[in-house]
Amino acid sequence: MAGAIVNGAESLVRTLVAGGVDVCFSNPGTSEMHFVTALDRVEGMRCILGLFEGVVTGAADGYARMTDKPAATLLHLGPGLANGMANLHNAHKASSAIVNIVGDHAVYHRRYDAPLTSDIESAAKTVSSWVRTSPDAKSVAADGAAAIAASLTAPGQVATLILPADTAWNEGAGVAPLPPVEKPKPVAKEAIVEAARVLRSGEPTVILLGGRALRQGALELAGKIAAKTGARLIAEGSVARTERGAGRVAVSRLPYPVDQALDMLKDVRHLILVGSRTPVAFFAYPNKPSLLVPKQCESHLLARRSDDIAHALEWLADEVGARGEKAPIVPYAKTTPATGAITPETLGQSLGALLPENAIVADESITTGRGFAKATRASRPHDWLQNMGGSIGLCMPLSVGAAVACPDRKVVSLESDGSGMYTLQALWTQAREKLDIVTLIFANRTYAILRHELTNVGAQNVGRKALDMLDIDRPDLDWVAMARGMGVPGTRVETMEAFNASFADAVATRGPSLIEVVL
Amino acid sequence: MAGAIVNGAESLVRTLVAGGVDVCFSNPGTSEMHFVTALDRVEGMRCILGLFEGVVTGAADGYARMTDKPAATLLHLGPGLANGMANLHNAHKASSAIVNIVGDHAVYHRRYDAPLTSDIESAAKTVSSWVRTSPDAKSVAADGAAAIAASLTAPGQVATLILPADTAWNEGAGVAPLPPVEKPKPVAKEAIVEAARVLRSGEPTVILLGGRALRQGALELAGKIAAKTGARLIAEGSVARTERGAGRVAVSRLPYPVDQALDMLKDVRHLILVGSRTPVAFFAYPNKPSLLVPKQCESHLLARRSDDIAHALEWLADEVGARGEKAPIVPYAKTTPATGAITPETLGQSLGALLPENAIVADESITTGRGFAKATRASRPHDWLQNMGGSIGLCMPLSVGAAVACPDRKVVSLESDGSGMYTLQALWTQAREKLDIVTLIFANRTYAILRHELTNVGAQNVGRKALDMLDIDRPDLDWVAMARGMGVPGTRVETMEAFNASFADAVATRGPSLIEVVL
Repeated sequence: MAGAIVNGAESLVRTLVAGGVDVCFSNPGTSEMHFVTALDRVEGMRCILGLFEGVVTGAADGYARMTDKPAATLLHLGPGLANGMANLHNAHKASSAIVNIVGDHAVYHRRYDAPLTSDIESAAKTVSSWVRTSPDAKSVAADGAAAIAASLTAPGQVATLILPADTAWNEGAGVAPLPPVEKPKPVAKEAIVEAARVLRSGEPTVILLGGRALRQGALELAGKIAAKTGARLIAEGSVARTERGAGRVAVSRLPYPVDQALDMLKDVRHLILVGSRTPVAFFAYPNKPSLLVPKQCESHLLARRSDDIAHALEWLADEVGARGEKAPIVPYAKTTPATGAITPETLGQSLGALLPENAIVADESITTGRGFAKATRASRPHDWLQNMGGSIGLCMPLSVGAAVACPDRKVVSLESDGSGMYTLQALWTQAREKLDIVTLIFANRTYAILRHELTNVGAQNVGRKALDMLDIDRPDLDWVAMARGMGVPGTRVETMEAFNASFADAVATRGPSLIEVVL
Repeated sequence: MAGAIVNGAESLVRTLVAGGVDVCFSNPGTSEMHFVTALDRVEGMRCILGLFEGVVTGAADGYARMTDKPAATLLHLGPGLANGMANLHNAHKASSAIVNIVGDHAVYHRRYDAPLTSDIESAAKTVSSWVRTSPDAKSVAADGAAAIAASLTAPGQVATLILPADTAWNEGAGVAPLPPVEKPKPVAKEAIVEAARVLRSGEPTVILLGGRALRQGALELAGKIAAKTGARLIAEGSVARTERGAGRVAVSRLPYPVDQALDMLKDVRHLILVGSRTPVAFFAYPNKPSLLVPKQCESHLLARRSDDIAHALEWLADEVGARGEKAPIVPYAKTTPATGAITPETLGQSLGALLPENAIVADESITTGRGFAKATRASRPHDWLQNMGGSIGLCMPLSVGAAVACPDRKVVSLESDGSGMYTLQALWTQAREKLDIVTLIFANRTYAILRHELTNVGAQNVGRKALDMLDIDRPDLDWVAMARGMGVPGTRVETMEAFNASFADAVATRGPSLIEVVL
């Protein structure tokens, strides 16, 4: 290739690889063809096809959570972005680093308003922290490098780079160097002093953990501080990635139901925020508060999500003299799987007993899984990934990204039948890439959470027409058939004995599989 | 219910029904629960569940095309809108009337930036002609009526109404009356005179038809004008709804490939635009023009899509003395189905022979179907619906809407395996609602169009990594299994004899079915 002219697309792919971005989740179209063909000329970029853009963006989210670095995406104009937007929303709320590349019409072609023309920038801004449209082929490499740096800006961001087609096919520049990356910021001394004062006060205090405070090292520091001062540790309702199970410090999460959350915090006088925010209700409900803290409770910011959380906790531990404390590490508790009827409780028990060492759990089990965290508290060590943006249809794509990031770990995908239908195309990518994922579909034949929410919002006299909008039976979905249609072997289980056998089998066998768990 | 307090949601549902909007395609969440429960208290609204929002919005598009009036949608916050956006983009480009209702957080809850919070208005504006957020429950009914009127504004629009949850549960007003609707505008006399002058000039002239110029009445007028003046009739490359087949005036469409389109128009001196625009290439390509008309060609606007096209054509017919002409109506041509190997040509031949009377054809067959229009030119009369926005994944949802709109007509859904995967969830809605749709999946195991586009954009030296992004084999999709998983019976055919038998069977049997056509 010596002396060959490098087009904009190739300069971008080379810049991505040089900048450490070596996985691209992709659903390309005409305007991205030069990027695609550059893949064959550039060593070191793994490109993974999704048959729907929600798979692509959710996978990039999962990859970022497990590697703390970005994958690239490759999406086709405004509609490609639109199809990927719900999971970009989730990634944005999770502070996941993504270099989100969206092709557009050639710059000179936009004025003709061809069918696929739309306002990509405005749409992208709703789910990105950084958006740039490359003006010409010579700028693409530098814009790509800037996108990598933006994505890595602490704690991680969705950076959208819009790539008009002619910037891909015209002559590009060389590889652009990575600009300086904005690292996590050290916290101010005042914040440490204030938190220490509160902790010494003896008043009921909760250390509310979010973001990277749920990684093992930070958790141990928080555990020591709690042990020394008597403060309680609680995690935000959703956390992008929690290192948990045996050998880690266990933390309860703030529950989703407003009344339970209020109850958990009812006597608290001080909240120390560590990578977290003062907790708010997921939804508003008539006659319930938006803020989940009692009136007398004061919030004290120790560290934002974008701050250097581990450093702040070290400093605070020193300040309160907790460095020598013993963190409350959970020992492994050997348990036995449940037998008999399938219920949320028996499922939790079996998961707790059977979860393999070092598993990655992607969790969108919503109502069925409410008790799973407690049931796996002392299981073999594992990572737990939650939906941070509330847009369902994340779990199966997220599992794709986690499995690509960590090929030597088993991914356990906890999915519900309602949520799973949004992005079921992820199963095909799991099959093509032979990813080591077992998907559990909790088939309760309804959007169960909405049946609870009917009560929560005060809706009364619910009749057949309303229930038809919540129940997803008639016809029942056959997940085993759908999975087989996409190349993933599946089984259906209706007893815990069958579940235990199928799950153990899936754990022991490398590659994708699916278990439809009939509730 | 006398004297009962009506909440905002119920006032909206009552206003919709009173305004003629009696179908709602829906994928609701917590913030839409009051709307859902109001369905049981209000007579006359049919609510249809989709398991993914792209099904909901594409169905509303199909419904609008077949009824010329809006359905409502019901989507859940920003991510619900995002999932429906690609097909809203298509509907927007098709000028389809849709009352697009998006729930949001309660007004007072937005400031807390809960997980599902996003900038819904900015996203909605990229695919809507009208966007309004209802400020309070008393305004919801009037805002709903305004949305109906906006959606009906000629030629039809996507009108997005954002509904904060508290505007649904607080006390509403009564039913709001429908404001005046902006009807199609009569064209100016100058446009008629100018078009007539061009038509009399004897210079090579094309009457380029778009929008409602492709409905039977307008087509006959255009046919008379062409017969009288020697002008050629050509349709835009994509048309939302064409009434065609035996008994109608046949019009060739401008082809998708740029070189073929340029060739079709190469000698043209004048274009008379009737519900159409000067044609542009779908994509830009290196060294090819964006505009598809030759340099010497002049465009003359007779009628915009939003103008009264039928009236303009009547007037022009009078002006050129064509009212007494005989329109070139296509007689029915009885043909025989093809036998032997399955190819795009043999499929076209069989479709032409077997298409049932009054069928609605939803067409996203892309490469496989390029010759289908010609092959069905003199088939039994039917309507043909095309993708107007270029965002694939429209066809199966569009079929849902068309079938709901026209329960006494067979819908023939021409889908490709690549495009079909974007919104395959539509099959479940077809099963639940027992819609009379036969879906043909043309399974060529590739994004075939992208293989053409590689050449068009000048990409060279295509290798395995690039082809992996275009081919959707490994594993092959099993559409029969996936359809069965959603309750739709299917068969796979590998010869034309088998295709003919399966298709005839599907036409004769009421309800949904799927045929995987292996190419």
